[in-house]
Amino acid sequence: MTETGCGTTATRGPTGAPERHGTIGTQRAGEPPTPAGRPDTAESEGQEAAALLRESRASVDPELRSAIATLPPTMSRVALYHFGWQHADGTPAEGNAGKAIRPALVLTAAAALGGAAARQSAVRAAAAVELIHNFTLLHDDVMDRDTTRRHRPTAWTVFGDADAILTGDAVQALGMRLLATDPHPASAAAAVRLADCVMELCEGQHTDTAMERRAPHEVTLDETLAMAEAKTGALLGCACALGGLYAGAAEEDVEALDAFGRQAGLAFQLIDDVIGIWGDPRHTGKPAGADLAVRKKSLPVVAALTSGTPAAAELAALYAAPYDEEKEDLERTALAVERAGGRDWAQAQAADRMARAMQELARAVPDPEAAGGLLALAEFVTRRTT
Amino acid sequence: MTETGCGTTATRGPTGAPERHGTIGTQRAGEPPTPAGRPDTAESEGQEAAALLRESRASVDPELRSAIATLPPTMSRVALYHFGWQHADGTPAEGNAGKAIRPALVLTAAAALGGAAARQSAVRAAAAVELIHNFTLLHDDVMDRDTTRRHRPTAWTVFGDADAILTGDAVQALGMRLLATDPHPASAAAAVRLADCVMELCEGQHTDTAMERRAPHEVTLDETLAMAEAKTGALLGCACALGGLYAGAAEEDVEALDAFGRQAGLAFQLIDDVIGIWGDPRHTGKPAGADLAVRKKSLPVVAALTSGTPAAAELAALYAAPYDEEKEDLERTALAVERAGGRDWAQAQAADRMARAMQELARAVPDPEAAGGLLALAEFVTRRTT
Repeated sequence: MTETGCGTTATRGPTGAPERHGTIGTQRAGEPPTPAGRPDTAESEGQEAAALLRESRASVDPELRSAIATLPPTMSRVALYHFGWQHADGTPAEGNAGKAIRPALVLTAAAALGGAAARQSAVRAAAAVELIHNFTLLHDDVMDRDTTRRHRPTAWTVFGDADAILTGDAVQALGMRLLATDPHPASAAAAVRLADCVMELCEGQHTDTAMERRAPHEVTLDETLAMAEAKTGALLGCACALGGLYAGAAEEDVEALDAFGRQAGLAFQLIDDVIGIWGDPRHTGKPAGADLAVRKKSLPVVAALTSGTPAAAELAALYAAPYDEEKEDLERTALAVERAGGRDWAQAQAADRMARAMQELARAVPDPEAAGGLLALAEFVTRRTT
Repeated sequence: MTETGCGTTATRGPTGAPERHGTIGTQRAGEPPTPAGRPDTAESEGQEAAALLRESRASVDPELRSAIATLPPTMSRVALYHFGWQHADGTPAEGNAGKAIRPALVLTAAAALGGAAARQSAVRAAAAVELIHNFTLLHDDVMDRDTTRRHRPTAWTVFGDADAILTGDAVQALGMRLLATDPHPASAAAAVRLADCVMELCEGQHTDTAMERRAPHEVTLDETLAMAEAKTGALLGCACALGGLYAGAAEEDVEALDAFGRQAGLAFQLIDDVIGIWGDPRHTGKPAGADLAVRKKSLPVVAALTSGTPAAAELAALYAAPYDEEKEDLERTALAVERAGGRDWAQAQAADRMARAMQELARAVPDPEAAGGLLALAEFVTRRTT
């Protein structure tokens, strides 16, 4: 259950035509596809997205903070640390709770179909979605033994596995509780969708872990895409769908919003995987080729491995053994992925997914003006400097 | 989050006057207190409880099984194993899903205040409570590294930590989903109570783990009781309260039902702790004094340690070092707990808690005939051969 959103260094769109001859650390992806009826200025969309995220935080944070304050003492402390609002010793911290893209999607989808009143009515649901997202982060970090999240030590490294698991459990319950206390007529339907989404996230996390344990040749591209949709797309889709529900949208529009979020989520994951191989260390904070060094079966890698090309065989041979920096040049491994078509495929897929997302968005929100906010957010999450 | 309910060997009530001079493995507790207006025949109550549990299973199991069938494949498989309905290889098993006392409490409380129609309307809520209980068992077993549950290897020992955690997460979501899909007017209030209960269970599990890590002299009796209420009493209380909600009971009666379940749960825990020291290995399946060997800070032990008696000092000295079977005779350690008053205190407390439970029950369900089922279940969970 990947964290989305990027730093303030993002200036360009990623999902356009692939640039073929970039080397590790220099790739910048092309312009995003231009949706019909919208001026294509990535910069103004970036500004719009930033404003939407800021306004969303302003609406949702008080709801989120007052909810977390009702947790039992231990869980509250761990949650406040995880959200970046307290240091490990319980003193207040400046806060780096991530971009909170999901609550912004809830509110922006509600506003797109129901205006300001619907947006306002969906604040509690937006907080619930953010709580569910963070419960999955707390648990995933335990399972994956990840030690850093949002530039800080993960909760389990500070408070131990048990308290991180228990806090995740309590935060899930708190998210569902928010919806159960919500008098809005859509709250029960929202709770059903959110619970279904939790189950899909769990299956996605399971599949991810299981795939990483399997031999490279045993992993198919279809199941890798399905895993990415479950792990990353499902909650983005659910966030958009909840916004639709709170705007009183018809079932088919709610489904189209869900599909919009899923496709945008997949585009995000494809770009994130490209960055994991060819990302500029100055922007990613990770060494170049980081995903290759840990033999991650990311989407471009699986596309390369299953391409049937000579480079696929070369890559498979490299992936058959752990990375050894004495013997292997990661830039050449990245070149094998590229020669096997993994990079082109991922960038074309990302563009395709964004195009599908735009189609779904146009179906749910035909008025381009009203759809502008969701479009800006989708562009924002997939716009990463590499 | 302890499993309640006992085997079919139970024939006597536990919460009456303590028998002072039993030795390890021979204790049988006294008769239960007699509630006004009820014939005191432990045997007929035992039969009534057994019938209620049987009927509850017949109502709730289909709901539970069809809910679990909707889980994603991996989570469904782990859950079916955990519930005893499948072997680890996915083949059908005869099933030993525990006594399912909690759903029986939901249905019996609903019937007590709303008759057969209320009982029938509460079946989905009863299944939700059982799912929440089992999510906590899945997670607690991971945290406590417990390897056996219901006489089978625990889920994490079979499927690994990650899948046990993910299945617990999904099962929690499934429980809340059942309530969100329930058209009964009480379902949202029930979801709020159940979510609150999850948070209390989490804090109880945290406190239990934290207390076990602290030095014996740092643990107070009050916090041990509070921990036992959170870990064991809360969900029994919540189950009864949900039954009341589904019967349309007044808020004060719902609270009295909650208090009834909590007090009965504490009585259960006190008896369970007595059995953990003086239980007959032929009935418990554990060696005599098992809790003393692992230095468990159970309620009788903490009562003894904080008694200010010479035996308390002797016990503290023993608990200061790990158990060494070459040097320590557990029967003598048990005798120190007994001399320090730990056993008498626990049995008197259990009787007191059952008396309080009866008072709360009489408040919520004044008609003794209507209250009979809940009384029988409370007696059942606290009636254990030692």
